[in-house]
Amino acid sequence: MFSIPALNPDCLVEIRQRIDNQTKPPGSLGQLEALATQLAQIQWHGADTRLSLSQPTMLVFAADHGIARHPVSIAPQAVTRQMVQNFLAGGAAINCFCQSSNMALQVVDAGILEPIDSTSPVLLQRRVGAGTEDFSVQAAMSSEQYQQALLSGAALGQQQVASGCQVLGFGEMGIGNTSSAAALLALATGQQAVDVVGRGTGIENEQLVLKRRLVEQAVARVKNAHKGYLDAATLLQEVGGFEIVQMIGTMLAAAEQRAVLLIDGFIVSVAALLACRLHPDVRDYMIFSHRSAEAAHWDVLQMLDAEPLLDMNLRLGEGTGAALALPLLRAACAFYNDMASFDSANIDVDIPESHSVKPS
Amino acid sequence: MFSIPALNPDCLVEIRQRIDNQTKPPGSLGQLEALATQLAQIQWHGADTRLSLSQPTMLVFAADHGIARHPVSIAPQAVTRQMVQNFLAGGAAINCFCQSSNMALQVVDAGILEPIDSTSPVLLQRRVGAGTEDFSVQAAMSSEQYQQALLSGAALGQQQVASGCQVLGFGEMGIGNTSSAAALLALATGQQAVDVVGRGTGIENEQLVLKRRLVEQAVARVKNAHKGYLDAATLLQEVGGFEIVQMIGTMLAAAEQRAVLLIDGFIVSVAALLACRLHPDVRDYMIFSHRSAEAAHWDVLQMLDAEPLLDMNLRLGEGTGAALALPLLRAACAFYNDMASFDSANIDVDIPESHSVKPS
Repeated sequence: MFSIPALNPDCLVEIRQRIDNQTKPPGSLGQLEALATQLAQIQWHGADTRLSLSQPTMLVFAADHGIARHPVSIAPQAVTRQMVQNFLAGGAAINCFCQSSNMALQVVDAGILEPIDSTSPVLLQRRVGAGTEDFSVQAAMSSEQYQQALLSGAALGQQQVASGCQVLGFGEMGIGNTSSAAALLALATGQQAVDVVGRGTGIENEQLVLKRRLVEQAVARVKNAHKGYLDAATLLQEVGGFEIVQMIGTMLAAAEQRAVLLIDGFIVSVAALLACRLHPDVRDYMIFSHRSAEAAHWDVLQMLDAEPLLDMNLRLGEGTGAALALPLLRAACAFYNDMASFDSANIDVDIPESHSVKPS
Repeated sequence: MFSIPALNPDCLVEIRQRIDNQTKPPGSLGQLEALATQLAQIQWHGADTRLSLSQPTMLVFAADHGIARHPVSIAPQAVTRQMVQNFLAGGAAINCFCQSSNMALQVVDAGILEPIDSTSPVLLQRRVGAGTEDFSVQAAMSSEQYQQALLSGAALGQQQVASGCQVLGFGEMGIGNTSSAAALLALATGQQAVDVVGRGTGIENEQLVLKRRLVEQAVARVKNAHKGYLDAATLLQEVGGFEIVQMIGTMLAAAEQRAVLLIDGFIVSVAALLACRLHPDVRDYMIFSHRSAEAAHWDVLQMLDAEPLLDMNLRLGEGTGAALALPLLRAACAFYNDMASFDSANIDVDIPESHSVKPS
């Protein structure tokens, strides 16, 4: 359905040479060199490639979850809509961080309980339904809803890239969606509920026990309903959310156009994992912004062989980690584009043949 | 000599309340909340405090080291001056990162071997000498030079703050200065040379052995020369560098005026440690930007009870980590200043009495 170009490894030697000829000890920018290499590979069009991150845009996908009729969150379900209104009013953390990182913000109503009557250009109405069903007892969505959500997300990704956006941040809002992400993860990897269910935004012990039980119940239900192989599309219909499926559609369509995908925390990373199950080459376009405080996020990052840029014990969602990480992407572009070479700066350093020296 | 105001803990309750009333689960911004709290405490003037980081400025202190007559670095000693010229020409990593982080850059010639004839406003000529002496066999500098360097740095700190700068980044350039920092650390903490000497910018095994031997020799020499208590000033004269002493003077004078001090990697952190030995209250004004690949940096951070913002395996110096971290400080100010409260945004969340819940 999506035709995502695999990155060509042939340019890696030239990228490495360029970075190693810059006026610094080879390898001394650590993880930022790996980041610049990935960006250069994505945007490669020859040795004179200059990296750019035009029109960076944060997309916050919001939806409600049937599972939230159980007390699995610190907040009542109405808070999804209230927080979307907060995004539109400019008062949320993601507004502050988009402002501070000079990033545009769009909020997608992917299916919150009750629509918002607003003409704000920040809000995109792409509702698939009024929240999903309670996945502990039935499929979260129909296969038609799944298709609609995926296509709606894909159309958004195409539009964004067509209008000049080269880097998309992914965020989410949805009371109950760590439960959905945990169930997706358990089903996608075979992990136990106890290993994938965490405290989300900060639930107490009693709620944690309930949340684990509901995820276990959902996992058993889905395994029972689908005796054979569980593909990603089935999992997403069974225990996913409208915001999760839409963001997967956007990731796949944007990668098709060689955009950079800036992944936020636990929920967005689970969406990224499932996007990779659908189209493995999408992984090449993903940058993982941070490691969240949600323990299962660590597992997801490991499965994706991802080294996140930040590790600040964040557990807010909304795309906050991704917005915080954008300046590091800009810095990677800046040094790749503009640093002098040893030759051009007349500096007497012999570049070692091998720079595999690890600091002791 | 410096009169640094200790931060008043009385405002902490009000700061905590403000942050906990913002539209996010309490504590969910993790380390960024601690950062905002520190900034608010530094700039506190009542409940209506708005944080600001006017005129952020990176100061790169450059000097040469007598110890570099031995092959303790991947680069010959002439590279200190060549890199300063690279800074003035705009071609170094720190230029790119200051540009990308919207930070002014000043380069201080604190005593490189040969002065640079330049009228660039980026260059500040504050030379204490033409490099230090070889500290493996004699004191790096005289007590007059130490005083001159400290006062010169202090004058710079006062000027910067007087001209409106609220946050100073600290960086360094000096071939051989990881040797100086390692010797300072060994003497200040009683650690063995083998534990504090690393590969710096990436030396090979043979050089590492020599570097350790020279640091051991210096430590033995200094301990022998000063039988009793080794105070920070003595250590700095014995094995320090002109750039290290000047930056300490700048840190102390800037903290006196309540400026924020943004600390870079290993060498700047050792300078920070010694600044704290001279005036413990300066610690309150320090923000540690990153954990470098130099193993001994971890020890220094622990001694200073510092939780660095970034951990990207950087080992370049120049202030690069500090420049990369500045956007995180801006983000902390942005959310502290501009996030809505639950009341103002009409959001139905009961703030838990205690938010000591740790993610599982």
